[in-house]
Amino acid sequence: MASITPWRQLLLDSIQANKHLRHSEYFQLATVKENGRPANRTVVFRGFIQGTEKLQFTTDARSQKIEEIKTQAFGEICWYFTDSREQFRIGGFLNVIGNAETNPLRLKIREQAWFQSSLDSRLQFAGPSPGIPCVKNGPDDNTTPKLDPAEGPVENFCLVTLEPQEVDYLNLRKMKRYSFVKTGDFSWTQRELIP
Amino acid sequence: MASITPWRQLLLDSIQANKHLRHSEYFQLATVKENGRPANRTVVFRGFIQGTEKLQFTTDARSQKIEEIKTQAFGEICWYFTDSREQFRIGGFLNVIGNAETNPLRLKIREQAWFQSSLDSRLQFAGPSPGIPCVKNGPDDNTTPKLDPAEGPVENFCLVTLEPQEVDYLNLRKMKRYSFVKTGDFSWTQRELIP
Repeated sequence: MASITPWRQLLLDSIQANKHLRHSEYFQLATVKENGRPANRTVVFRGFIQGTEKLQFTTDARSQKIEEIKTQAFGEICWYFTDSREQFRIGGFLNVIGNAETNPLRLKIREQAWFQSSLDSRLQFAGPSPGIPCVKNGPDDNTTPKLDPAEGPVENFCLVTLEPQEVDYLNLRKMKRYSFVKTGDFSWTQRELIP
Repeated sequence: MASITPWRQLLLDSIQANKHLRHSEYFQLATVKENGRPANRTVVFRGFIQGTEKLQFTTDARSQKIEEIKTQAFGEICWYFTDSREQFRIGGFLNVIGNAETNPLRLKIREQAWFQSSLDSRLQFAGPSPGIPCVKNGPDDNTTPKLDPAEGPVENFCLVTLEPQEVDYLNLRKMKRYSFVKTGDFSWTQRELIP
């Protein structure tokens, strides 16, 4: 099992301290588009991959971020905790576990994430493609997707992991800032910075 | 004066509806680094440039985003309103108004932003460079910067504007999503999308 690195302990503490706020589970993920411009959206944190430092979230295979990750596999999370006034900027490698995955362990992780999602969340992956224009009064207008709660992940369900390489922590209440940089498989350096 | 475009009315309504929450003034700005990787951080909204659709915020001339904007002038804001559960993704051109500015109108706008900032905010621009390592017990350790409240902007104070080109609006409560794309100097198209 991975030891708890200093930044991860800080993050776990922040999650705990802000637990009463539903939006404290949301962070913003920046990626880079094929045209070299940045993209930024809110994503729901789905916990760490057990025994690792990798953060996980889910997405639809038809969403733009899948293409963006193919172009540039490095992403940056900005996670601001509104109550404790702490910000984590977490840069790292993004990895998509989709329907075409063949590794049994990774398929298992994807399946676990599926069953940990609410039924409402799951239904979104079975519905029409997110981000395409609505067709009013079209033939599919009244189709509500149905799902058996016992059924495993649908084709469009993807689990994405971010493996942190650098973390910038800012505490606006204490006016403290720390930088953590990964230097090896299990080692990180830590430096205090001017906020 | 610019007419109020549909996305801007939505945004003004959200700002108003979430006004009781201090953090509703904060959004996340994604830029692209020289190495092609994304950067993402929380920024404080400082209002629109009067009579325009340009959003403004302030930054330090010594901060990394200044270099990033030189590399890639397009940025994307992700602004999530926690109470009303609305997200605005606003992509547009970033423009920095710094100390070397010569245009009198732009210098005036920068000066206004300076005086609209709190004294505490202003002091940060007069202090040591943000993001550099702290030097403990160094010769400058106890130096507290001083500023005359009547004095104009210090050298490091920059105003940044973002001129929106595309806006993606998502309302998680109503499960509605709209896309707005700028098609001309004063014209936008609007489409409803699958959320």
